[in-house]
Amino acid sequence: MGELNHKQPIYPPIILPSPMILVYSLGGSILAGRDAESLKGYAHALKELAEEHQVFVVVGGGKIAREYIAKARALAASEAFCDLLGIGATKMNAMLLIAALGRAAAPEPAESYAGALSASAGGKIVVLGGMAPGQTTDAVAALLAEYVGADRLIVATSVEGVYSADPEIDPGAKKFDKMTAKDLVRLAMETEMKAGSRSPVDPLAAKILERSRIPAAVVYGGEVENLKRGAEGGHSGTEIS
Amino acid sequence: MGELNHKQPIYPPIILPSPMILVYSLGGSILAGRDAESLKGYAHALKELAEEHQVFVVVGGGKIAREYIAKARALAASEAFCDLLGIGATKMNAMLLIAALGRAAAPEPAESYAGALSASAGGKIVVLGGMAPGQTTDAVAALLAEYVGADRLIVATSVEGVYSADPEIDPGAKKFDKMTAKDLVRLAMETEMKAGSRSPVDPLAAKILERSRIPAAVVYGGEVENLKRGAEGGHSGTEIS
Amino acid sequence: MGELNHKQPIYPPIILPSPMILVYSLGGSILAGRDAESLKGYAHALKELAEEHQVFVVVGGGKIAREYIAKARALAASEAFCDLLGIGATKMNAMLLIAALGRAAAPEPAESYAGALSASAGGKIVVLGGMAPGQTTDAVAALLAEYVGADRLIVATSVEGVYSADPEIDPGAKKFDKMTAKDLVRLAMETEMKAGSRSPVDPLAAKILERSRIPAAVVYGGEVENLKRGAEGGHSGTEIS
Amino acid sequence: MGELNHKQPIYPPIILPSPMILVYSLGGSILAGRDAESLKGYAHALKELAEEHQVFVVVGGGKIAREYIAKARALAASEAFCDLLGIGATKMNAMLLIAALGRAAAPEPAESYAGALSASAGGKIVVLGGMAPGQTTDAVAALLAEYVGADRLIVATSVEGVYSADPEIDPGAKKFDKMTAKDLVRLAMETEMKAGSRSPVDPLAAKILERSRIPAAVVYGGEVENLKRGAEGGHSGTEIS
Amino acid sequence: MGELNHKQPIYPPIILPSPMILVYSLGGSILAGRDAESLKGYAHALKELAEEHQVFVVVGGGKIAREYIAKARALAASEAFCDLLGIGATKMNAMLLIAALGRAAAPEPAESYAGALSASAGGKIVVLGGMAPGQTTDAVAALLAEYVGADRLIVATSVEGVYSADPEIDPGAKKFDKMTAKDLVRLAMETEMKAGSRSPVDPLAAKILERSRIPAAVVYGGEVENLKRGAEGGHSGTEIS
Amino acid sequence: MGELNHKQPIYPPIILPSPMILVYSLGGSILAGRDAESLKGYAHALKELAEEHQVFVVVGGGKIAREYIAKARALAASEAFCDLLGIGATKMNAMLLIAALGRAAAPEPAESYAGALSASAGGKIVVLGGMAPGQTTDAVAALLAEYVGADRLIVATSVEGVYSADPEIDPGAKKFDKMTAKDLVRLAMETEMKAGSRSPVDPLAAKILERSRIPAAVVYGGEVENLKRGAEGGHSGTEIS
Repeated sequence: MGELNHKQPIYPPIILPSPMILVYSLGGSILAGRDAESLKGYAHALKELAEEHQVFVVVGGGKIAREYIAKARALAASEAFCDLLGIGATKMNAMLLIAALGRAAAPEPAESYAGALSASAGGKIVVLGGMAPGQTTDAVAALLAEYVGADRLIVATSVEGVYSADPEIDPGAKKFDKMTAKDLVRLAMETEMKAGSRSPVDPLAAKILERSRIPAAVVYGGEVENLKRGAEGGHSGTEIS
Repeated sequence: MGELNHKQPIYPPIILPSPMILVYSLGGSILAGRDAESLKGYAHALKELAEEHQVFVVVGGGKIAREYIAKARALAASEAFCDLLGIGATKMNAMLLIAALGRAAAPEPAESYAGALSASAGGKIVVLGGMAPGQTTDAVAALLAEYVGADRLIVATSVEGVYSADPEIDPGAKKFDKMTAKDLVRLAMETEMKAGSRSPVDPLAAKILERSRIPAAVVYGGEVENLKRGAEGGHSGTEIS
Repeated sequence: MGELNHKQPIYPPIILPSPMILVYSLGGSILAGRDAESLKGYAHALKELAEEHQVFVVVGGGKIAREYIAKARALAASEAFCDLLGIGATKMNAMLLIAALGRAAAPEPAESYAGALSASAGGKIVVLGGMAPGQTTDAVAALLAEYVGADRLIVATSVEGVYSADPEIDPGAKKFDKMTAKDLVRLAMETEMKAGSRSPVDPLAAKILERSRIPAAVVYGGEVENLKRGAEGGHSGTEIS
Repeated sequence: MGELNHKQPIYPPIILPSPMILVYSLGGSILAGRDAESLKGYAHALKELAEEHQVFVVVGGGKIAREYIAKARALAASEAFCDLLGIGATKMNAMLLIAALGRAAAPEPAESYAGALSASAGGKIVVLGGMAPGQTTDAVAALLAEYVGADRLIVATSVEGVYSADPEIDPGAKKFDKMTAKDLVRLAMETEMKAGSRSPVDPLAAKILERSRIPAAVVYGGEVENLKRGAEGGHSGTEIS
Repeated sequence: MGELNHKQPIYPPIILPSPMILVYSLGGSILAGRDAESLKGYAHALKELAEEHQVFVVVGGGKIAREYIAKARALAASEAFCDLLGIGATKMNAMLLIAALGRAAAPEPAESYAGALSASAGGKIVVLGGMAPGQTTDAVAALLAEYVGADRLIVATSVEGVYSADPEIDPGAKKFDKMTAKDLVRLAMETEMKAGSRSPVDPLAAKILERSRIPAAVVYGGEVENLKRGAEGGHSGTEIS
Repeated sequence: MGELNHKQPIYPPIILPSPMILVYSLGGSILAGRDAESLKGYAHALKELAEEHQVFVVVGGGKIAREYIAKARALAASEAFCDLLGIGATKMNAMLLIAALGRAAAPEPAESYAGALSASAGGKIVVLGGMAPGQTTDAVAALLAEYVGADRLIVATSVEGVYSADPEIDPGAKKFDKMTAKDLVRLAMETEMKAGSRSPVDPLAAKILERSRIPAAVVYGGEVENLKRGAEGGHSGTEIS
């Protein structure tokens, strides 16, 4: 299952089309805590990519989502209600990224997949938040990638890629250089079945990659350079094919 | 994992509150192919239940969904687009059930969870279709059950309950009388990881039942009496607790 | 009233502008029963037309509309509710045509006339379904033709054109090669006043053609070539001027 | 066709249910030019009716619609655009009637038939304007009457009822005391086919009355008492059955 | 201008109707930083009030609004865009208050004044956030008070009431026990004209109170008891009449 | 405060960028009473400007707004409800201007600031009406100017510019050639504090100009040439900087 790797990979090794349609999933941990200067860096990278490619970005909820959800849970709100609060947080983060992107972005977060596609006319970067309770923003990004016919999905997370086990718990965990979507589905489901552990890519997102054969990269989002590497090659995360 | 059963169970054996908030998931196969006379029977049963309980119904896409999706796939539409077509089909089916329910129902399918809750004021039965690409109507029903604080979720499917294996393939498959939501999650994920097999309850719906500890029944929807038995006891399907 | 024809006409004989703004009304019987291969043919024809002209397409409900409406009527739903079900069916058909058109089309059915006009920016083919209870999709197409300032409306139906009587009932019925919109209004109203007979163009659509003097062609939609002929000339249906 | 009348009728002579669901079509000429005092009178009558019955009111565009449409036409706007302007005017008039009705009315004009039905919960009077280009507010009222299962439609117009000819042109025109919906359809269509003459009930509204067998009264709206008489009997207009 | 006060007032001294329609403006500083336990206290107080009165609550943006706006400004976003971000924050806070209120509240923040009025049917507490760029939530609360015909508006702020000057800057600032709306307008405008100082009630809110003569109380929102006192008397803030 | 002027100014004297983003506020008194011929003149001027610049236009309510509001007030409607009626009137006027602009304009009034920005793609003139109760269309125009990053706001009013006092009351009132936004805020607030007098620019609009440092011109809108002069220089109104 997958190919374990110990040296620096140069992925993807295959010839990529250009321009590409790219969908990014930027986890809440990537954007939400950053200061304006750092956000500018991410926006700069996305704008450079958008000069050549068509770029869509789905952003997560991060710290603000966690804080509001924690309070709502303590107030006995349902989990579905908490999901809606989390979606509210992703829209705030999406608006902040739009602020950083300025005129390079469509002026408001897209509210539907068709809306995202329409808003991309003229080369605008389209930013989205969460769409529905019960779905992570990774899943939204995978669905959007399907919908717009993306050439690649880049999942920028807080870890270095997909591991054979949770690296924070198991020091022997190995990072996969590459793996099939089918293996990713299996790994994600097995991980989610264990109490308290979370997969870097949620099972639904993995299944969508599998059903639509969309090439994807799971990269460490803490380094802004990985946005470009995830799209055009040279990243040290995990390549899903 | 679960408790296998060979004689007629009387579930749920526990004392139920009355009135209850009930959410039904009526698979597309249950409603979509029926003639008007048969739909009246289902509507009659739901109206009887609504005299005592608050009733929400999520309906699937069924045959019309499959036909349109098959054509769309042959036209190279994305799977996410096909999901949207399927949602369109569930809305048609939801409208048909509303026609059968008449004034007992809110006049149009709810478009959001909050909208469903608001529309239930005054004791109206609220009917919904699918809500988002990448989610089955079972998952929508489970999310709605969370959102409205349902006492029970009743999943009416084309099989008799949850089995240890696909009964159409494996003649030794046993039906579970009851099982925990955690076991259902495990079973659903293991089933989905096998090529070509589908779980009677999809993994996301199972996980939502688990996270919110909503009691549920999986019953054979082909018999209209099972709607009432699934809510109030006496069904021969699988009880999730 | 009109000009009866016995030989192959070459309509329209007048000089047409190019590019034109074209609105098509594709009756449900034209698209709804077709398989994917056949839908591709229609999509191909529309895409070719869209390379030169601005193309809008209004699609009807067809078989799925009839089936759902028949059930809803048997369930005592009101005719206005049935109209709404029929509109739901036209949206499904519109999405299927969008699937066939792929990137040549705006990604979702337009929900308003202004929305249709906006969505046509950049040369996209815009597809619509029904808009309001009490209105046929022919009437929607005529209203859209007015709204967008169309050069021609092409009504693609299940018959060869406008006849002096229903050709299935009256073997002596003659097809009109051309007629005025005023004559079409009269004929449509007289037809509709007879029990059980339907005009190939409904009276409202006819009146809209009359009030706005939009040239139109009524052609047999079962032959895909008639889409182009209806717009650019050479069809053997009825020319309304 | 119909029954000509020369003495004061007491319609409807049949036993009416109570409470009834009533739909009013108040032509623009009835409300639009009135001062506040006069509007209060109409509101008072509707509130009295709403104490016993469920009341829906569709209001026309009147003078403001005509003025704006005349300018838009002079600016070469399409007729469909003019229809949209007219709908805007009906919404203004609907809001004014809501102001006159105060808390007896739902707080804003309904935007759909289902919305109208939902807004009527709790006994609120629901006010609507026009809904779609190409449709008069009479047609909207007839469709709403179908949708809500109205017991009666009362069309309050600027003339005394339905005449055999335009009474302003033909001094021998006779008012019908009663007529069938089928006769009304025929009369409306024949009237509309003549240049420059308008039927007191438009053909589409007439056809909807015919298809759904909704009893209706066409009464002179300039006398506020006719609102009650149109619903409960005693009017001197035309009864459609 | 106003009446300065040095001893504990018992406002309002006039006879109040009961039940009343009450609109609360809860500044972001009141709710946004609180933990769940504290939010429960506010929710409890509002639910008690709602047992007797009809209650609407407009909530501010608070800390989360300030943080996101600060970042957006550093990213060169326009002030109008920042206002929209702030509105997003108020919706998050509104949802959190709804979570605390549970079934006593309408399930989602109202999106319009008419929507707020409709959602209040059945005695539900209706919660709103901001509505439009360029308007404080105090102004929204005042507009809502007008719209729903409120008997009283209670502005719960971070200070003890309206002062003759900013009490943090000018130790000689006196709190007004009561003042007219006209005086409040003057004071608010004079305050806003000074660089860096903000009025406890913004000029637009004050002008709305003036134009509609809505009695209001400005109270210290840090004490939950002041919600009830502001409505029913006994507060030590400023009474506007 | 400001610079009083007695001879013909040539404003703005500074070098202007080209193309500019221009936002116009056309008071209801400017457009609402005009006949079609006159509206064509304004449309022609705006189309000429749009050939070089990006143009947004916010239109006021004028006579129709005043008439409807007067009636609503006499019917005891709340001021907030009257504001909503006024917004309805601005939409009617916006549609009329769109009719005059034809294909040079986006086909319907924008419903949000983001919607206005999106609709401007491709060089379309975007027309808006009012947006929220409690806000003048001048304030909407100022907020839009912020949102779209306008180079200039041109307020076309029924007076010649900003005066030191109301010129209709005080014959010694002087027109300012130029003034700072800060001075405009002060003047607007002082004016509004006086009973019965209205500032040519409302205080909120003035404050928005101040906070975002948007250069603005207040010009007499009764002369169509002033639209161009307000943008490009040469007007005899008041320049705000």
